[in-house]
Amino acid sequence: MRAGDGQRILGEEERIDWLRLIRSDHVGPRTFRALLDHCGSAGAALEALPELARRGGAARRMRICPRDAALREYDAARLLGVSYVALGEPDYPPRLATIDDAPPLLAVRGTMAALGAPAVAIVGSRNASAAGIRIAERLARDLGAVGFAVVSGLARGIDAAAHRASLATGTVAALAGGPDRIYPPDNADLLDAILRRGAAISEMPLGWEPRARDFPRRNRLISGLSLGVVVVEAAHRSGSLITVRFALEQGREVFAVPGSPLDPRCEGSNHLIKQGATMVTEAADVVATLQPILGRPIVARSGGDRLEEAPAGTAPRAEATPPTDTRARMLTLLGPTPISLDDLTRLSGQALSTVHTLLLELELAGRLIRHRGGMVSLAAADDQA
Amino acid sequence: MRAGDGQRILGEEERIDWLRLIRSDHVGPRTFRALLDHCGSAGAALEALPELARRGGAARRMRICPRDAALREYDAARLLGVSYVALGEPDYPPRLATIDDAPPLLAVRGTMAALGAPAVAIVGSRNASAAGIRIAERLARDLGAVGFAVVSGLARGIDAAAHRASLATGTVAALAGGPDRIYPPDNADLLDAILRRGAAISEMPLGWEPRARDFPRRNRLISGLSLGVVVVEAAHRSGSLITVRFALEQGREVFAVPGSPLDPRCEGSNHLIKQGATMVTEAADVVATLQPILGRPIVARSGGDRLEEAPAGTAPRAEATPPTDTRARMLTLLGPTPISLDDLTRLSGQALSTVHTLLLELELAGRLIRHRGGMVSLAAADDQA
Repeated sequence: MRAGDGQRILGEEERIDWLRLIRSDHVGPRTFRALLDHCGSAGAALEALPELARRGGAARRMRICPRDAALREYDAARLLGVSYVALGEPDYPPRLATIDDAPPLLAVRGTMAALGAPAVAIVGSRNASAAGIRIAERLARDLGAVGFAVVSGLARGIDAAAHRASLATGTVAALAGGPDRIYPPDNADLLDAILRRGAAISEMPLGWEPRARDFPRRNRLISGLSLGVVVVEAAHRSGSLITVRFALEQGREVFAVPGSPLDPRCEGSNHLIKQGATMVTEAADVVATLQPILGRPIVARSGGDRLEEAPAGTAPRAEATPPTDTRARMLTLLGPTPISLDDLTRLSGQALSTVHTLLLELELAGRLIRHRGGMVSLAAADDQA
Repeated sequence: MRAGDGQRILGEEERIDWLRLIRSDHVGPRTFRALLDHCGSAGAALEALPELARRGGAARRMRICPRDAALREYDAARLLGVSYVALGEPDYPPRLATIDDAPPLLAVRGTMAALGAPAVAIVGSRNASAAGIRIAERLARDLGAVGFAVVSGLARGIDAAAHRASLATGTVAALAGGPDRIYPPDNADLLDAILRRGAAISEMPLGWEPRARDFPRRNRLISGLSLGVVVVEAAHRSGSLITVRFALEQGREVFAVPGSPLDPRCEGSNHLIKQGATMVTEAADVVATLQPILGRPIVARSGGDRLEEAPAGTAPRAEATPPTDTRARMLTLLGPTPISLDDLTRLSGQALSTVHTLLLELELAGRLIRHRGGMVSLAAADDQA
């Protein structure tokens, strides 16, 4: 599962195990990686889950996705033309594979090849001005003409304009809901047009209606797929700025189109330029910045210490069960204030691998919250699912 | 006449001599300085002019402004409420005094005190958009509120808006024509309002109708008076960008207000931001940059090597007449391609003071062109006035 090698292809049975594991309670992209490292395979992880969660002090039995539910999703998806691409497989979008919380399985609709092209995201206001729409179209068309795929979020306004203007050259929509749940519904026709030469991706289960909190989470995929994010018209606290935050964390370039200081729709984008984002008035500005990056090979970023600790093919380490008093000590060290793994390891006096195992157990028990930058905290009692 | 000391006040007779000298043929601000250095006073320079021009090879007798013409201008100006302030006098605007080609005499109307305040220029399109006008007003009002005088060029559009919004706090108009020749004429009422708490300055003779080429020349006064220049809406090749070029040469800060890439009126200003101008959406952006500069004492920039060579009060050096063969050699070295004073001195093997004298003679004969950065070239035969 090492990001960037992209040479391994999962067997059918293994893919179902991956789907079951990522659809189980308390298993997000990071926990998924930790489980694979800890147990050696998704199948082994599924078997180990109940015991790990029990040791972590789960309040009740954790829900593991049943094999038949995963099979049902898998078959229904296939009928819809959805493929599941696993992290580490050759078809997995190479840039996306480099982010810390890359989805282990990506539901893909449309043209797989569109995910391999170098990509630029164009995002912005839903209630965009006519000028903003025209700029988004012009940038998307011109970036498409020089070979970039255009990534966006299928929202109204800027997103839709960017997709529309790059239909002929290839555009990628990152969805907040399941691959069959299109939001807003009136962009369903646009999605159909996108799929002809482009693609749509989703990490959510088939049939999943997107909730408000799924949109920010989805935004990390928009930036993660891309070399850079261009913001066209963004108000002060807008979703586009969340995408920018992800882009910065992921080491992506940030671009912004300037606008009148009198237009509140440009406050966010103007502010970005003041903060150092590259100002864009034409596609050439984006190309000039990205050209040098395009030459560089794509390499996985640090990817979390787990990946570094456990080379591919390492034997499962489930036998390294920490003693109960170590577990109690860990709980004492943890609290509602996020603390770094380094501090936790130092203060606990335990090996890093032991700390990882204990945290994994707590996570599966729904008692641990992982924060950006490798920080963790204990979930409040009422946070527990 | 050393810029920055500002303690000397000219006698009435001396002021008339200054006016005569600057109103004579081939005497611009730089030649004026050179003549004062060479001859010791304006009166001595007026006497030396014919001989210097003859030695430089003037095709015909140079026109020296007669004393009665200067007196007529002086008296007529006084009736209009115009004062002539000389470079080096306490009332001369301190920032303007630091530029290489500061006008030796400045015709001032209105409130002299307005020229002493720290100033910011606001310039931009004549055919500005409503949004541009509103931004100019907002910036001028807010900069005025924190104590800056607002400098502009009394043009339609952005200039007029900037003056109007800072009438109450103090605003300065730099005119391209004589102090009594208001362009455009429909801004005459605005000028009257400006003079109540602000001022208008001009370096041109009373009654001088501004020609097209007087506007770029005037723009160096706009930037020269100011700590920084804010550009609001400027097309690609606009007068505002000339002001910016002067500002950069004079070491002033350059600010620009962003706008939509679709608006050609914002092309110039957006381009400036790409080139490194500070982006401005509110007055605070300007204040944040200028605050640290305000604390620093105002010092004259290099001011040309002449000033450094000849301390104030040095005896006239007109006796140092270079021999004729040296003069011929200098003419051989000079051509239509600009060459630096350093190179000329080195190649001629003459003392710098001799080179200065020879160049001054050629200049007064209308045979020398001075370029930026201390470069000089020989005027083509048909360039001679």
